[in-house]
Formats: sequence, C-alpha cells, structure tokens
Amino acid sequence: MARAFNFCAGPAVLPLEVLQEAQAELVDYQGAGMSIMEMSHRGKQYDAVHREAVANIRELLNLTDDYAVLFLQGGASLQFAMAPMNFLPAGATADYINSGHWASAAVKQARLLGNVNIAADCEKDIPTRVPELSELHFTPGAAYVHITSNETISGAQWKVFPKTQAPLICDMSSDILSRPIDVQNFAMLYAGAQKNLGPSGVTLVVLRKDLAEKAAKTIPAMLRYQTHIENDSLYNTPPCFSVYILALTMRWLKRFGLENMFRRNREKAALLYAAIDGSGFYRGTAKKECRSDMNVTFRLPTVELEERFCAEASKAGMSQLKGHRVVGGVRASIYNAFPVEGVQALVAFMREFEKRNG
Amino acid sequence: MARAFNFCAGPAVLPLEVLQEAQAELVDYQGAGMSIMEMSHRGKQYDAVHREAVANIRELLNLTDDYAVLFLQGGASLQFAMAPMNFLPAGATADYINSGHWASAAVKQARLLGNVNIAADCEKDIPTRVPELSELHFTPGAAYVHITSNETISGAQWKVFPKTQAPLICDMSSDILSRPIDVQNFAMLYAGAQKNLGPSGVTLVVLRKDLAEKAAKTIPAMLRYQTHIENDSLYNTPPCFSVYILALTMRWLKRFGLENMFRRNREKAALLYAAIDGSGFYRGTAKKECRSDMNVTFRLPTVELEERFCAEASKAGMSQLKGHRVVGGVRASIYNAFPVEGVQALVAFMREFEKRNG
Repeated sequence: MARAFNFCAGPAVLPLEVLQEAQAELVDYQGAGMSIMEMSHRGKQYDAVHREAVANIRELLNLTDDYAVLFLQGGASLQFAMAPMNFLPAGATADYINSGHWASAAVKQARLLGNVNIAADCEKDIPTRVPELSELHFTPGAAYVHITSNETISGAQWKVFPKTQAPLICDMSSDILSRPIDVQNFAMLYAGAQKNLGPSGVTLVVLRKDLAEKAAKTIPAMLRYQTHIENDSLYNTPPCFSVYILALTMRWLKRFGLENMFRRNREKAALLYAAIDGSGFYRGTAKKECRSDMNVTFRLPTVELEERFCAEASKAGMSQLKGHRVVGGVRASIYNAFPVEGVQALVAFMREFEKRNG
Repeated sequence: MARAFNFCAGPAVLPLEVLQEAQAELVDYQGAGMSIMEMSHRGKQYDAVHREAVANIRELLNLTDDYAVLFLQGGASLQFAMAPMNFLPAGATADYINSGHWASAAVKQARLLGNVNIAADCEKDIPTRVPELSELHFTPGAAYVHITSNETISGAQWKVFPKTQAPLICDMSSDILSRPIDVQNFAMLYAGAQKNLGPSGVTLVVLRKDLAEKAAKTIPAMLRYQTHIENDSLYNTPPCFSVYILALTMRWLKRFGLENMFRRNREKAALLYAAIDGSGFYRGTAKKECRSDMNVTFRLPTVELEERFCAEASKAGMSQLKGHRVVGGVRASIYNAFPVEGVQALVAFMREFEKRNG
C-alpha cells in the first residue's frame, strides 16, 4: 500500500502505528471474542480504555486535580452553545475575541444565548492575523473571555495568550497538544478530536471544576458540564471507538514526548514558510508573527494556478491541499501525526511547480 | 478466535462480516492511501459512505420525501432535550407516556424545558408492561406525544402503537429496524445507533420536514433539527467512522431483508420465552403481551442464583447477561446481529443450570 501524504484540515492524518494496532484488534479486542465497538461502556475492558485516555490527557496537559477531563460529543460546534449556556447568565456579558471564521462562529451561537462583547475584531483583516494584546478591550466583570487558539481556515495562531481577569475559555480544536501550554491560564479548553487527538466523534473538554459547579441546574442534563463531571463522561453511552483511538493516539504522543512534538511541528512549519518566503511565486496569507504551525496557508498568482497546483500535487500523492471553500488558496495542514517526509515532498513539489509555472 | 455470544444491551453485537470488512480496509480505505477516519467529511469517498447510509435507512424504513434522515451526536439522551427545545413552545403541553426507565428519563428532561402531561404511567408496575391503548389520556391540542417503543431495562415493548392526533415522537433506540413499522404514524423517530444500527457515537433521527421548519430560530444551531436538515447532517464534522459502520450494517440488513429479520427476531425471542415459561425456575419479568423481542428479562429464585447464573454463563462464552443495575435479574439482549446459535446455547445452558440448581 502507498500511504498518501494527507494534508486534510480535519478529519486528519492519524499515526500509522495507531491505525495498524486498531486494525489488528478490530474484530477481537485483546481476546475478548468481540470488538471494542461491541462492548458495554461500563465493562472492565472499555473502562480501562477510558481511564487510560483520561490519564494520558491529564499527564500530557500536566493537569492539577482542580481540572476535569471530559469526553463529550457534538464537536466544537456544540461547545459554542454549551459554554454560554453554562457560564453566561442573564444580565452578564461575555467577551469574545474575533480572530476569524471559527471565533466568529462561536460568537454567533453565544449571541443567541446572552450578551456578547467583541473584545477585538480582526476577522476580516488581510493578511490574516490574531489581535495584538494591546488591542483587547475587556468588559470589567465579564462572565468569561472566549478565544480561539488557532484559526484553521486563515492559518493564524496565538503565540502568546492574553492574561485575563475573567475565566479564559479557549477553542483549541486545531492546535491542542501541538505545543506545551500552561493550562492554569485557562478556565476551560475544548477541542474536537479530529485534528491532533484522534478521529471525529469525540470532543475533549478540560475545565475547572469550580466553574462547572456554578452553572444553572435548569440546563438539560446532557448540556451541563456538571452532569459529565459527576459521571466521569459516562452519563450516557460514550462514542467508544473514537475514545479508544484517542487513547491510542495519546499513548503514541506520550512516547514521542510533547516537547519533541512541538520542536518537530515548528521544524515542519518552518520548512514550508521558508519555501514560501524564498519564492516570489507563493505568498503566505497570515502575518509572519501569527503564522500557524498547524495550517500553512498560501496563495499562488492566480486561482487557475492554485487549482492546477492542488490537482497535480494530489496526483503526486499529496492530497487535500485545497484551501477552505470560504477563502480559497492552498492550505497544508500538518498536525502532529503528519510526517516530516510529507512536508519535504511538498517543498520539493512547490519548487518544481514554480519552475514550470513561475 | 472464539467469538463470544455477546448479550450486551448496548453497545451491542455487530455482524461479524461488517467487522471483518471494516478491519480489512481500516488502514487503507479502498486504495485511498488513508483510513476512512482520516478523510475529509466533504470529500468524495466519505460522501459516498454518507449517501449510502442515508439511502439504506430511507429504503429500509420505506420513507417518503417528506421525512428527513439525520445523523447526529449525543445519543437518545440529547434527543430527550432537543425534542422539547424544538417542538414544545412556551404555553404548550407535551404528552409523555411513561413506560419505564427510559421514558421517564425523557420526561425529566422535557420538564426542564416546558409543560409535560403524563398520558399514562406504568413505570413502577410489576410485571413490567407498556400501557394499554385505553389507558392513554391525551391533552387536546398537545404539541406532541412522546413514546418509547421498547424499554431496554424492563424488557417491555409496544406491539401496536397508538394513533395520536398530535405528532407522535418515538424513542426507538432499542428496537428500530428490528421489525417493519409504518413511519407515517410518526412525526419523528430517534435512536442511538449502538443496538440495532451500528456502534455508539451516532444518533439516527428521522423526522417530518414540516415539523422541523416550525421550530424557533433562536435555538443554538447544533440543537436545531432544521440546521441539520439544511446541511444534510454535515453542518459540522460528523462522527465519520460510526456512520461508516452504520452504513455497512444497514447494507448487511438489506441483504438479509427486514421481514426476514423480524421473523428471525421473533423466533429467537420465542425460544427464550418458551424456555422461561416451560420451567418453574425462571420467571419472566414482563407481561406476556408486552414481552420484548430485543431484551428478554427474567429472574431466578434468588439473587445469589442470578449471580452464579451470569458468572457461569460468562465462562461458557455467553457474556453480558447481567440485568441493568437499577433492576437486577438477568437480561438477554438479542438484537438483529445476535445469532440464533447464541440463543440456542443460552437455552441449553438454562436447562442445564436449572437441573443443577432447581
């Protein structure tokens, strides 16, 4: 089998050894005579998977006991609603930092549920960027501040997070565990798994327990964080297979080491940005100081060239390079599991394509 | 490998050939050089899976164009909240039929969101049962009527559904597609997949489009059925792998035929109920006319014997026979994918256990 270099923004590439392990035990999980998909979520074998997934996340994020680790469903999109349902009471205001498409999507849902102040807005800025710390205007006594650590579509990423008086809630879907962070700065993190954590179908939520306790008890059970804390994410049947693949992926990441992964991620991104900056042909779309290590976005001189670039790259085994439909261009998503060799192959292809078309 | 006879109530047994097919293509999906888990949910290959899953459900349920098929997340538990959020406006009343544990769980969530009338209540009845049609007291002009087709814990199942003036919404999690039904009697069906449809992590919702259109636009996007109808369940990243296994399972069910499956399900259940009734040792817990074809529940003379029964059966390769923790006893869940041979093995074991302990 020829394995593709898969630049998809999500669902994204998984470690080959994780896939191979899952394949080997897919029909008969560790001698149980059944698949992990067929097991009770309250049985011993699934429980061990669940516990390992939680423990690996706790270790990798260096969490203290005052934080809970939850595996929920519905992706970041459901978190856009759950966060304000739990933490934005009537009469209060939440500060949202609008850094682009996904931050804006969070704002839209929060506005259905309460008062929102836009603490800074650079959604429409070109080159794309995240706000500078000096631009942020917070509401005194805000219920919380919401931030998006990495804008997957525009390719802009926070390098230094603001310190906030109010609890800081972060959508970290597309760069969680790509680099070490100090979780103590955040009241809550959330991330759809399908970029750096595992397959789609499970959402990681890490939050301070004291915050969850304060949410109204009139929220439906499935939408209250406290329900899931009290039941260790087993209030209802979890997305077992997705949690299992996440557990294997986090085991893989622990073996690699988070500091090593961060170094490798920066090296991979640097290779691509150097190829962009070293040419007069490709043009990066994010401000240099905000360039994402996860989603490298760039343009070619014309839309026609961009289309040809993606089509020819795909034929050469480099798939899913097309930029998101709302912005166009080219996007190379190079999450944790994306191999260095794939970046090198893309850089070589970029040079060769420029020679032929530049 | 010795395959267990897996009587788990959910996540439950899947067809062996589905697992084998998924295993074969887990690392390299049909020559793509990547797993189905690693693919864009907007790409051609996943799109084909998604379309097949929808088409198979439409065909098996014999749906007309006025019904939408949705694949959501959060299980039946989230539907307990979404149904009233969408269809129970302030000032209106919804009628709930309380047939047991799961119906009661739906009531609890609906009460957080609006006015609920209990149209009949037999949750606490022993032997367990569902109400007779003559017991139902509906509210004139009710927003909807909610019913639970099969109580997984008590083992009671509706054999003939009531005809209602108000839209009928049914939690069909544990017996959907175990038998032919006339969907025209229902405004909406929903089911967590992990019993008859596939693995956990995806929820099937089938609903009348005209009903969804009426829901308030102030509901957060992820919690509005209309969002998912407008986006063909691709508003956000779906639980791709769960949908894929569901698609394969529905392909398997189509090959078998729904009428044939219903016949086989009744035969399997009849074998077990005959073994119960033919003994003075085992005692069925549901009224005969309400006995579930999916979850066969029974007691032994003492709790100690029940524990020994389950432990010895497990050693003999028949796993997960323990009744739900809230009721105790023995429960044999025999969904579509559960083989006849497993039922025959259990019947033989029951006779042998009775001889030794009766």
